[in-house]
Amino acid sequence: MKLTSQDLAQMEKRYRAKLINSLSGFKSANLIGTRSKSGQSNLSIVSSVTHLGSDPALLLTVFRPDSVDRHTLEYIQETKIYTLNHINSSIFEAAHQTSARYERDQSEFEMVGLNEEYSGNFSAPFVKESHIKMAMDLKEVHKLEINGCVMIYGEIREIILPESSLQNDGFVDLEGAKTVCVSSLDSYHETKRLSRLSYAKPNLDLKHLNLKGEVLEP
Amino acid sequence: MKLTSQDLAQMEKRYRAKLINSLSGFKSANLIGTRSKSGQSNLSIVSSVTHLGSDPALLLTVFRPDSVDRHTLEYIQETKIYTLNHINSSIFEAAHQTSARYERDQSEFEMVGLNEEYSGNFSAPFVKESHIKMAMDLKEVHKLEINGCVMIYGEIREIILPESSLQNDGFVDLEGAKTVCVSSLDSYHETKRLSRLSYAKPNLDLKHLNLKGEVLEP
Repeated sequence: MKLTSQDLAQMEKRYRAKLINSLSGFKSANLIGTRSKSGQSNLSIVSSVTHLGSDPALLLTVFRPDSVDRHTLEYIQETKIYTLNHINSSIFEAAHQTSARYERDQSEFEMVGLNEEYSGNFSAPFVKESHIKMAMDLKEVHKLEINGCVMIYGEIREIILPESSLQNDGFVDLEGAKTVCVSSLDSYHETKRLSRLSYAKPNLDLKHLNLKGEVLEP
Repeated sequence: MKLTSQDLAQMEKRYRAKLINSLSGFKSANLIGTRSKSGQSNLSIVSSVTHLGSDPALLLTVFRPDSVDRHTLEYIQETKIYTLNHINSSIFEAAHQTSARYERDQSEFEMVGLNEEYSGNFSAPFVKESHIKMAMDLKEVHKLEINGCVMIYGEIREIILPESSLQNDGFVDLEGAKTVCVSSLDSYHETKRLSRLSYAKPNLDLKHLNLKGEVLEP
């Protein structure tokens, strides 16, 4: 079936949001941890964390203009730091619950039953129950004229991950760490690896690789 | 284990690229179809398509500065249109092969064995073998000072999808359409739905929903 931009314009708002949010494909599932200067912790789920570059190591995150994450964005701008924590299959319900509109003096950690964890003197909270997590330095904030979204670029300052997840070639086994992905606004998915594939070159057959990046015999 | 930004700075380039590309979480897997004014078709894989908004329906895509997709970006800027095509588990190897550095006069469609398909008078090619695909109008192009990446914002003009994928509440069953996701630079994954979850509110227990968005009895 075909749907045109005219069809989209006539759709009920929530219906359209679920539809359009499905169309980018599967999305990353992260929790952003922040703490205000006055010590208030905050945690919110985001599905827009996207790779921006490896050197420097940059990730972008998009915030909706009407977001319930207003405290998160405020605290990031106040302190210039935040954490990103992969959502795994043991905590996806608690992670989803952070999207409820809690009051400013309510910490989502406490409200949803996740635990704060700290690393060194970095003052933003990590999620203890998350297996792969990063300390982030805010680099840039951009408000988009096109629809009022706010996009932030952050640089990775520290990575915490299980040693068993990191393969010899730098590949991280997200699946082994139970990291999940999201589709549309409310659907959570675990994954099953089809294959790693060799670096593609013209006139060369692709090879299937195992988790470690070793060529699998046909 | 912990890795610091000092550790990252000392890593071999390809190792670091595989590591950092793992850290945003699972990524969407799309093919961008373009055709130059002179009629040359081009197809390239991207894992950076991200939801930007539903009204208007906007998706962003990031291109690396050193990308092999230079023809894709050139044709998008030349014609102001492109297609996005979900990669599914039947075509992930062919999709990966589009990342090889083919010459300008070689169409990746032909080189990797995927077929062009057209809709109405929209001149950019869709991937026939893809199940969920979109005709896109280019809205904005931004070159990022921070690392030279180019980010494009596109508006959805037309959606082509299986009628059976679209649920009554607007949710699209990506998993049923066999859409895959990517981790790091070379790993492809199918998904298994854990659950859809109800809209989160303070002081209200979350409910598990089935594919159609109906509450599942506990």
